[in-house]
Amino acid sequence: MSSGKAGDRPGEFELIAKLFAPLAREAPGAFALTDDAAVLSPPPGHELVLKTDAIVEGVHFLHDDPPETIAQKALRVNLSDLAAKGAIPAGYLMALLLPDWPGLSWLEAFVSGLAKDQREFGLSLMGGDTSATPGPLAIAISAIGLVPSGTMIRRAGARPGDRVFVSGTLGDAATGLAIRTGRACAVPVAVQEWLVRRYRVPEPRLALGQALRGVASAALDVSDGLVADLGHVADASQVRILICEGKIPLSPALAAMQREDPTLRRRAATAGDDYEIAFCAHPSQRTSVISAGRSSGVVVS
Amino acid sequence: MSSGKAGDRPGEFELIAKLFAPLAREAPGAFALTDDAAVLSPPPGHELVLKTDAIVEGVHFLHDDPPETIAQKALRVNLSDLAAKGAIPAGYLMALLLPDWPGLSWLEAFVSGLAKDQREFGLSLMGGDTSATPGPLAIAISAIGLVPSGTMIRRAGARPGDRVFVSGTLGDAATGLAIRTGRACAVPVAVQEWLVRRYRVPEPRLALGQALRGVASAALDVSDGLVADLGHVADASQVRILICEGKIPLSPALAAMQREDPTLRRRAATAGDDYEIAFCAHPSQRTSVISAGRSSGVVVS
Repeated sequence: MSSGKAGDRPGEFELIAKLFAPLAREAPGAFALTDDAAVLSPPPGHELVLKTDAIVEGVHFLHDDPPETIAQKALRVNLSDLAAKGAIPAGYLMALLLPDWPGLSWLEAFVSGLAKDQREFGLSLMGGDTSATPGPLAIAISAIGLVPSGTMIRRAGARPGDRVFVSGTLGDAATGLAIRTGRACAVPVAVQEWLVRRYRVPEPRLALGQALRGVASAALDVSDGLVADLGHVADASQVRILICEGKIPLSPALAAMQREDPTLRRRAATAGDDYEIAFCAHPSQRTSVISAGRSSGVVVS
Repeated sequence: MSSGKAGDRPGEFELIAKLFAPLAREAPGAFALTDDAAVLSPPPGHELVLKTDAIVEGVHFLHDDPPETIAQKALRVNLSDLAAKGAIPAGYLMALLLPDWPGLSWLEAFVSGLAKDQREFGLSLMGGDTSATPGPLAIAISAIGLVPSGTMIRRAGARPGDRVFVSGTLGDAATGLAIRTGRACAVPVAVQEWLVRRYRVPEPRLALGQALRGVASAALDVSDGLVADLGHVADASQVRILICEGKIPLSPALAAMQREDPTLRRRAATAGDDYEIAFCAHPSQRTSVISAGRSSGVVVS
């Protein structure tokens, strides 16, 4: 863990390093964050899957979101990509841009969010950098995953005749954001908290992704909206993809709202931030897809 | 390469992806940035060295620095860590936070800075993320290097009796920054440009670092100042390190200025941003150290 010199707040940055060091405890190659770099070797027969994604206050999360969920979102948007590629999480590097000293309790809560997700998803912090910034809080994470060599699920593998699937439900996160920013009307109070949580804490479908290795012909995570993201698969695979609006999966919360607002299902197909997995598979893989969904406890539509 | 949805500038972000894709041309595992993640395997007998460092406008570089040098600094502050660890650069991931559309010519110059350094240091872009930000321009890079397994030079290896060495000269970058921010007095015009360049474009001592594997007992790059950084080596190695002020190496430019300002040599020992390698070695390694410096074309003091 190195510290941004420009802040000139060595006491604070040392404290941050101490707070973050326990997150590296189970990664021997991270040297408890006391070195400049980490070492890592994939186990025999495996290769590394690498991904970087940054989240910024006011863009990907809101100023008053809980620090636990900000940390979780920063990590999970990366884990979601590993999931879509069929990879097993191994570790991550984190660059933290801090606008000012957020206070010890804020930082402790931020670290506890990371610690919780590390336990849940089985990975460790391997290195980091903390820097002062005159701008908003931003967190850039690089996630490192493992796959048996040659088994990463690509975007470019879709073939004519493949069926298109998506995990979970769509549009929840966008509705959660709309609630948080006062743009949502007529959302029943009972489901508001659940929808906001879908925005704040995406669910990386890691077990499903791993079960789809050798089953899915192409996959990616839905971060920009199903239509845009399947467009990327279509481009990379040089195929056309037809999406049937009536089959866009909605949560019970959105299905109820849709009765009042018939455009909602269509909007769910273009809404971002859901971090579900969209994938293609040959029709002969139908039972394997169903069993992958069942074994990972995720509804696949 | 994924794009930050919050900007809602798809045309621009597609353009960025196109500009950046050529930087990934020589990394087959980067899939021309058309997938969500990259794959990488270290060659047999090697392990990966991983490092992340971010630079922020107004903190690590100035708003009107040339885009080429901003890009080079973002990459080189990471390469400098790989150098100090004895690693060979292999690839990098980059998260780019853009405050607004900087214009095509700015971006082209930024990319050309990266392209130039990729050629010079033999590495490729492996993946990236572009996001809008309401704050300043920031670039978070994660560098990936290779070392023969078990040969990474640690911080923690210094032993009592070791000699302390440093590459190049110290204090130049801080003087360059002082020139740029109008805080420097009496700097001869003839050396100003050279000193500013030392601030803008650090020189990662990669050949030296690789030559020091098996020679240096401990090493790190001087980013926070020699005194602070050797303090990290001392802490990690549980030794005391004595620095003789008179032996702090100064460039001809600073040596000339020092005649007017006798405190300059001491200030050079605490000045940041030089990105030289400070290292320790057993006295018996003296000739190996000299030959490592000679073979890599770097003065070692």
